[in-house]
Amino acid sequence: MLNFYGVLEKVRSRSPLVHHITNWVTIYDCANVVKAFGASPVMAHAGEEVSDMSGLADSLVLNIGTLTSEVVASMKKASKTANKKGIPVVLDVCGAGATPFRNRICAKLMKEAVIDIVKGNYSEIASVAGTKAKTKGVDSTDTGSDMIKISRGLAAAKKCVVVATGKEDIITDGRTTLIVKNGHPMMSKIVGTGCMAASVIGAFAAVEGDRVLAAASALVCFEITAEIAAIKAKGPASFKEGLFDAIPGLDKRTVEKMAKVSTK
Amino acid sequence: MLNFYGVLEKVRSRSPLVHHITNWVTIYDCANVVKAFGASPVMAHAGEEVSDMSGLADSLVLNIGTLTSEVVASMKKASKTANKKGIPVVLDVCGAGATPFRNRICAKLMKEAVIDIVKGNYSEIASVAGTKAKTKGVDSTDTGSDMIKISRGLAAAKKCVVVATGKEDIITDGRTTLIVKNGHPMMSKIVGTGCMAASVIGAFAAVEGDRVLAAASALVCFEITAEIAAIKAKGPASFKEGLFDAIPGLDKRTVEKMAKVSTK
Amino acid sequence: MLNFYGVLEKVRSRSPLVHHITNWVTIYDCANVVKAFGASPVMAHAGEEVSDMSGLADSLVLNIGTLTSEVVASMKKASKTANKKGIPVVLDVCGAGATPFRNRICAKLMKEAVIDIVKGNYSEIASVAGTKAKTKGVDSTDTGSDMIKISRGLAAAKKCVVVATGKEDIITDGRTTLIVKNGHPMMSKIVGTGCMAASVIGAFAAVEGDRVLAAASALVCFEITAEIAAIKAKGPASFKEGLFDAIPGLDKRTVEKMAKVSTK
Repeated sequence: MLNFYGVLEKVRSRSPLVHHITNWVTIYDCANVVKAFGASPVMAHAGEEVSDMSGLADSLVLNIGTLTSEVVASMKKASKTANKKGIPVVLDVCGAGATPFRNRICAKLMKEAVIDIVKGNYSEIASVAGTKAKTKGVDSTDTGSDMIKISRGLAAAKKCVVVATGKEDIITDGRTTLIVKNGHPMMSKIVGTGCMAASVIGAFAAVEGDRVLAAASALVCFEITAEIAAIKAKGPASFKEGLFDAIPGLDKRTVEKMAKVSTK
Repeated sequence: MLNFYGVLEKVRSRSPLVHHITNWVTIYDCANVVKAFGASPVMAHAGEEVSDMSGLADSLVLNIGTLTSEVVASMKKASKTANKKGIPVVLDVCGAGATPFRNRICAKLMKEAVIDIVKGNYSEIASVAGTKAKTKGVDSTDTGSDMIKISRGLAAAKKCVVVATGKEDIITDGRTTLIVKNGHPMMSKIVGTGCMAASVIGAFAAVEGDRVLAAASALVCFEITAEIAAIKAKGPASFKEGLFDAIPGLDKRTVEKMAKVSTK
Repeated sequence: MLNFYGVLEKVRSRSPLVHHITNWVTIYDCANVVKAFGASPVMAHAGEEVSDMSGLADSLVLNIGTLTSEVVASMKKASKTANKKGIPVVLDVCGAGATPFRNRICAKLMKEAVIDIVKGNYSEIASVAGTKAKTKGVDSTDTGSDMIKISRGLAAAKKCVVVATGKEDIITDGRTTLIVKNGHPMMSKIVGTGCMAASVIGAFAAVEGDRVLAAASALVCFEITAEIAAIKAKGPASFKEGLFDAIPGLDKRTVEKMAKVSTK
């Protein structure tokens, strides 16, 4: 059986530094969730220092949620440093499909540097893969198309791991495909769970070379805390509080008992 | 009687896309409150994509809380697209009166595009209307002047709906004037309730053509949740948690029972 | 005995305006904590208005957490206005030591304007003082070196008050040195307590001319609320909620009973 908890343990013991160049909406939550899982977040986007910061880091997380040309230029620089250093780069294609600018930037970022893990919801991943899909703001609406096939194709074409989140999360490198069935509908009732998931993946990929396992472990652990939080939640805010509260105490028994993962 | 709950129901069933170009302080809360009310938020400020994003949206919310020249340029572009498409534009004149730059920008934004709803606290609205009023940071301090008269005059001059928030909220298009007496003093103990109110107005105006009714319904619903949250709050943080928790469950009976609105 | 509560009382009664030019990660919490303590926060970073805003303010807080060249230019402008007006300037050297760019900016800001209070964790302060120290992201890791000596030296050299936070906080102007032993390990489990501490110092320094006393009072009051919050916290999120909830009710008896301050 895959040892998801083992990856969490490594995050906690090594406390990797996760460099983010991210959006202004969920930047606090991304930093805070990485810290709750036992890693060290750092957010820095100035062109003058992103290479140095990625040079110190154990992984790099890019999120295009509120991208501008200046920030994208910094993303490229940081990616190149990360590639040279051999640390994993996670790209959250947040809002892909919504505007031509966003699509262009996604393509550019994936062309000019190696992106190790591409993460988005179903419609964002479909859009990056060049398949027709409807993106409404940052919420996923596509459910009809064969997302596993699309994700595998994108992974093979771009030689990366693809993480497509939705009711069931798909994680694939084109050959191995894992399906994570954890999580709770309440996750879609607050802003930022998608961004946070990408940041957690960044923390887990920093300590685990098998990137499919790293991404799956991250989603399993994050989504189990959502299931725990949902039990006592009275609404979206207490749900989020419960989610963060549950992270540091997440133990082996709970992860092993609650993980719902299958191979496709 | 005015059907405030009916507007909330339309927000929930249609889930309009609310495009924000807003400040970096309360951007998360603005997105999150729009989501809690059942609408879809999207925050995007890059000049390269704001027109496309507003072109997809059902309303546009502008907030000058941490404005810069670049962001203001994007606000103008987005407003023009919104005007062409006929979707409502809400402008939160956050901090108006504090600096000449902020006043100049407010005037410019209202001159170069149609702003459908101008929202601010008493002193901000007084400042935009050209009346002397004291603004201290982003907190309203003016109470002496005749705010109803000032609001009506501004609405008539600019052909827009004016929302002046304070102990009693004034909503007017220059002819019809509604006074909302909901809310709770705790709202002024946390940062962001003013910005959130503008975002909720953006969500409600997206589904209701009568803009006075839309803005009043938004304030009634938002402020009722504040009253509910205040009952069990132990301080500003649990108040905010209670406020967000109360939003999704807000029902017809509660809104009809608790709404305190009069016509002036 | 030093009257820490007396300074808090002055913050509450005068409600000083605290102008921030800060980072995009913790900007909301910085504003919110200042408000919880009874002061008025305003965040503004546009070059066109920072001088006017500092001209209205009672203190200025600078934080280089997510600095860019544009924001640094605004920091310089605002500092000069603050110096002219005679209001205190607090600089949080967030992440100092991590990159050459960040070190260069710290040096520049302290050279081109008078910084009244420099605040950082042990490794950040050591870095600013030119001593070797390891900074990992924004978390303090240095504990070995003689931080009191380093802090005093920096204070004397730069003619400012130095606040070095860690397990024990050091506050010194080079002659008088206070050690604050309040606080709780949970503070390091959430993002932003360091930034918030700097903002609270900004609020307290706005009303108290003795800057060592102002900074110590700020830390004592902020960290006592952390101790109170830790009692019932179930995890990092409920800890943070409890911390904010405890601030407005903090009373004389509690502060006098719980303050742990010694002179070195």
